[in-house]
Amino acid sequence: MSNPSWKIGFIGLGLMGRPMSLNLLKAGHSVTVWNRTASRASEVVAAGAKLAKTPRAAAAAADILFTIVSDPPALEEILWGHEGKDDGALAGLGPGSVYVDSSTISPVMARRISAACSERNVRFLDAPVTGGDWGAREGNLVFMIGGEAETLRSIEPVLGVMGKKWFHLGPNGAGQTIKLAMNGILALQVDAMAEALAVVKKAGLVEEQLIEVMQSSMARSGLLDLKAPLMAKGEYKPSFPLRLMHKDLGLLLDLANQLGVALPATAAAREVYSYVKGEATEDLDYSAVMRFWKR
Amino acid sequence: MSNPSWKIGFIGLGLMGRPMSLNLLKAGHSVTVWNRTASRASEVVAAGAKLAKTPRAAAAAADILFTIVSDPPALEEILWGHEGKDDGALAGLGPGSVYVDSSTISPVMARRISAACSERNVRFLDAPVTGGDWGAREGNLVFMIGGEAETLRSIEPVLGVMGKKWFHLGPNGAGQTIKLAMNGILALQVDAMAEALAVVKKAGLVEEQLIEVMQSSMARSGLLDLKAPLMAKGEYKPSFPLRLMHKDLGLLLDLANQLGVALPATAAAREVYSYVKGEATEDLDYSAVMRFWKR
Amino acid sequence: MSNPSWKIGFIGLGLMGRPMSLNLLKAGHSVTVWNRTASRASEVVAAGAKLAKTPRAAAAAADILFTIVSDPPALEEILWGHEGKDDGALAGLGPGSVYVDSSTISPVMARRISAACSERNVRFLDAPVTGGDWGAREGNLVFMIGGEAETLRSIEPVLGVMGKKWFHLGPNGAGQTIKLAMNGILALQVDAMAEALAVVKKAGLVEEQLIEVMQSSMARSGLLDLKAPLMAKGEYKPSFPLRLMHKDLGLLLDLANQLGVALPATAAAREVYSYVKGEATEDLDYSAVMRFWKR
Amino acid sequence: MSNPSWKIGFIGLGLMGRPMSLNLLKAGHSVTVWNRTASRASEVVAAGAKLAKTPRAAAAAADILFTIVSDPPALEEILWGHEGKDDGALAGLGPGSVYVDSSTISPVMARRISAACSERNVRFLDAPVTGGDWGAREGNLVFMIGGEAETLRSIEPVLGVMGKKWFHLGPNGAGQTIKLAMNGILALQVDAMAEALAVVKKAGLVEEQLIEVMQSSMARSGLLDLKAPLMAKGEYKPSFPLRLMHKDLGLLLDLANQLGVALPATAAAREVYSYVKGEATEDLDYSAVMRFWKR
Repeated sequence: MSNPSWKIGFIGLGLMGRPMSLNLLKAGHSVTVWNRTASRASEVVAAGAKLAKTPRAAAAAADILFTIVSDPPALEEILWGHEGKDDGALAGLGPGSVYVDSSTISPVMARRISAACSERNVRFLDAPVTGGDWGAREGNLVFMIGGEAETLRSIEPVLGVMGKKWFHLGPNGAGQTIKLAMNGILALQVDAMAEALAVVKKAGLVEEQLIEVMQSSMARSGLLDLKAPLMAKGEYKPSFPLRLMHKDLGLLLDLANQLGVALPATAAAREVYSYVKGEATEDLDYSAVMRFWKR
Repeated sequence: MSNPSWKIGFIGLGLMGRPMSLNLLKAGHSVTVWNRTASRASEVVAAGAKLAKTPRAAAAAADILFTIVSDPPALEEILWGHEGKDDGALAGLGPGSVYVDSSTISPVMARRISAACSERNVRFLDAPVTGGDWGAREGNLVFMIGGEAETLRSIEPVLGVMGKKWFHLGPNGAGQTIKLAMNGILALQVDAMAEALAVVKKAGLVEEQLIEVMQSSMARSGLLDLKAPLMAKGEYKPSFPLRLMHKDLGLLLDLANQLGVALPATAAAREVYSYVKGEATEDLDYSAVMRFWKR
Repeated sequence: MSNPSWKIGFIGLGLMGRPMSLNLLKAGHSVTVWNRTASRASEVVAAGAKLAKTPRAAAAAADILFTIVSDPPALEEILWGHEGKDDGALAGLGPGSVYVDSSTISPVMARRISAACSERNVRFLDAPVTGGDWGAREGNLVFMIGGEAETLRSIEPVLGVMGKKWFHLGPNGAGQTIKLAMNGILALQVDAMAEALAVVKKAGLVEEQLIEVMQSSMARSGLLDLKAPLMAKGEYKPSFPLRLMHKDLGLLLDLANQLGVALPATAAAREVYSYVKGEATEDLDYSAVMRFWKR
Repeated sequence: MSNPSWKIGFIGLGLMGRPMSLNLLKAGHSVTVWNRTASRASEVVAAGAKLAKTPRAAAAAADILFTIVSDPPALEEILWGHEGKDDGALAGLGPGSVYVDSSTISPVMARRISAACSERNVRFLDAPVTGGDWGAREGNLVFMIGGEAETLRSIEPVLGVMGKKWFHLGPNGAGQTIKLAMNGILALQVDAMAEALAVVKKAGLVEEQLIEVMQSSMARSGLLDLKAPLMAKGEYKPSFPLRLMHKDLGLLLDLANQLGVALPATAAAREVYSYVKGEATEDLDYSAVMRFWKR
């Protein structure tokens, strides 16, 4: 039995969006794309995508619309359009269509989008992802999903083209909540390695030996194996950029503060990330938090 | 080729020391033990150990002396004896003997012990362990060692009875430095899980789902698999006691402050551990840091 | 020489706005007010103010418009109006008029308002205040002002009715930046007293004695004299509400994080305020941060 | 009625001890001094003091012994003497004499000294001071006292030569507890000013204007008036040295952690002080915490 082909809108052709949309094309779906910088769409258009003139046009053509952009203001402009023009994606979405946002934003904003979709009879899922650009290329992403279970079921064949796993976590906003909680753990885990490496180095010992010992411990993780050796060497080629991790820590702390949950260590780590971001002149991986100690 | 038998002194028969000394006996070594609470020595004596009357006597009988006690003051009393009595272990150690301390103490104290040993022509290794009581029973400990490489080589057959791995990390104090750095990572990694779980719960979502998602991430670790589900349930049966982790965080921060290395997130986490320790009325695992949010 | 009378719009009749507008009336100015909850305007109307039907109408009647509300979303609604209705204050402001906002908001939002005013030929000042409701009643407020010096000069006679001092601090946003920095100092200074009092109490000593000793020190301040004795007694009747201080700490940290400035102790204190806010069921003064230790 | 003359031992002739002992001489008391670096005693000897050969000798000559040194290890050596030599001050104190320690040490150590004094029938007061070297010269110190009220009463005439105020705060250790709590407040208050100044500067505004505004606020203090302008200029000539403040923050956090009291902002500030201490190459005032932001 072959998968039916869908009409898909796809907005946001960055490090993640490009390979995701290519996988959709490869699976035989009809894809209409839009990107703020139109030139970055050429690879996807060459692979068979149509290029829309506005977010609204990309949405109008679609059974399912996907968006994945780097921050809340960018998404806001895409959805509600530029002031005075009626070019936003929300205005284009037809009744009965499905809208899936895979950006990382606040749960509050996810619920605001959900309300705006409801008014238009559009079903909305917040569906941030993890797995990095490598996972996006390999079709190996993990989706964290908030929204109606039935809506999720209806688009599973399409998600399956881009990822291997999806978790239904609750109503709209739940995907974002879990994503932010996850990134808080990642950020603190990396900061913990940095703090420990800093002590070891200042004590005159060999950082790599701490890493080796940790690999015999219960704290061993993919992060430790991958990031810690690069941190010891001072190599911070961006895999997940520090500026995005810093933004996500801000969103997590905002959420926690709205809920009245104190996050002492997360807050402390955010300031260290902030310090490094403030000093940095180039784009760095978030493991560059190490630079707080090693300049 | 059979292993030669050694005369071994063993001081400290707690959760770790008991199984360690039993493994030494099982391997055919002659073991003389001392413990502050003599009654706790019965199992080891039944297995063939001699019971010394003083730390000094335990040391006097030994080619190699091991100590493993819960904190620096306890060790100080064992080594230098009670005021006015000359019953300390250091006074008993013969020239040419080896002394191995597997307690977790400050690197400064390890170097002080090293100096006292040098005066007596005793070779000293600081050799804190990881692996827990389970590792101690299975002979599966990991030793983090500071001191002379040659001294280490000379006792490897004996270490091999209690553990599978040892790391030579530098001069005296290096073992303690790496151990404290490791425990800092463990403490922060567990606190990170607690902070994230607290947000998820207060947001009305299911904690176990965060754990499940994290298991598909780069942050997955033995700690996550083992501790996080118990934290979600609120079960904190001591495996590594909170009061010891809290003490080790204090030693790590003391060390960092002496070195002039700022540890913002470690310091923040220490205060959370302190808060929970201050409220606790029973002995708890360090994962009970979760209680800061869940009372 | 008598002061000329002005036509003044005044939006926001809370704890601060009520006495401020009464002082304007007392000085002989013509005042048109608007408040979300119209009933709270009765005292001011009884004193001679006209009641406008919309923010737009209050602005249209004015040479100078003042606003003072509790948070950014409330201000946004007042300025840009409710969706679909054209009732916002910005639409009412005539060319050549002056708009003064005394709410505490982000410098970014102050600059956004400034830009919107420029388009309409309206001169804008951000002018948050300090001095509390007591200062508002006594006409004793301090204004922290961002915007054109000339605009400030033109309205000094009106400011002088409500306050005794104003500081011209830079371009639009500068008033808010200094106000947020000030509140950061206030929040940390009170948290510092709370942390010290908590140690003293747990050590079994008398909190009031710490306060007495501090009054002989360089750290003595109005805050210490006023707040610390109430904190020792556990009395937290709101003078400056915790929820507003918590909000301002969030705005300060957002600002610092945008600038790449790490604020370790401010961030730590914010989490303590958040903890207390999360547990509180009634409205409390920000000195109730003490409740983190004293439940 | 003239004050009777006392035989006084005085150990520690640093920035504080020198003027304190000079004031005792000026008041007609007989003073025997000891200092680790004997050459630093010359001014005091020229003014009439006798120079003792050992701490023990200084104590043996005294009705009241005072000590004021910079840290716990220095005091330990003075009291218990060098290993093998019997030259410590405790051994010299005669039954019925009074011993007053004005160093800043831990309450635990104060109680240990108290116990050692009891065994010798010596009455002990812990009596750390505040007021700085200026206060010491002017006889204007404030003493924070732990111990028996009667002991305090018996030496009030002597204290009155060095200070204007003393507070009886509880049993031995209470003086140190209050002193550490006070220094925690001072350290955080200065760090709060530094964090706020850092934001203001990075935002492109004038630091002195924040200070001026703060001087119209409830947070105004002697510290603000004195330290903040120097911090804005980057001048950190030591009045109270950063290394001592850093040590005292460590003692305060140790105490709080023993008591199970979490001090989130104090802990965060300590790490900032630690950072600056680690980078500093010269002796600086504790207000140099500002250097975390301004290098």
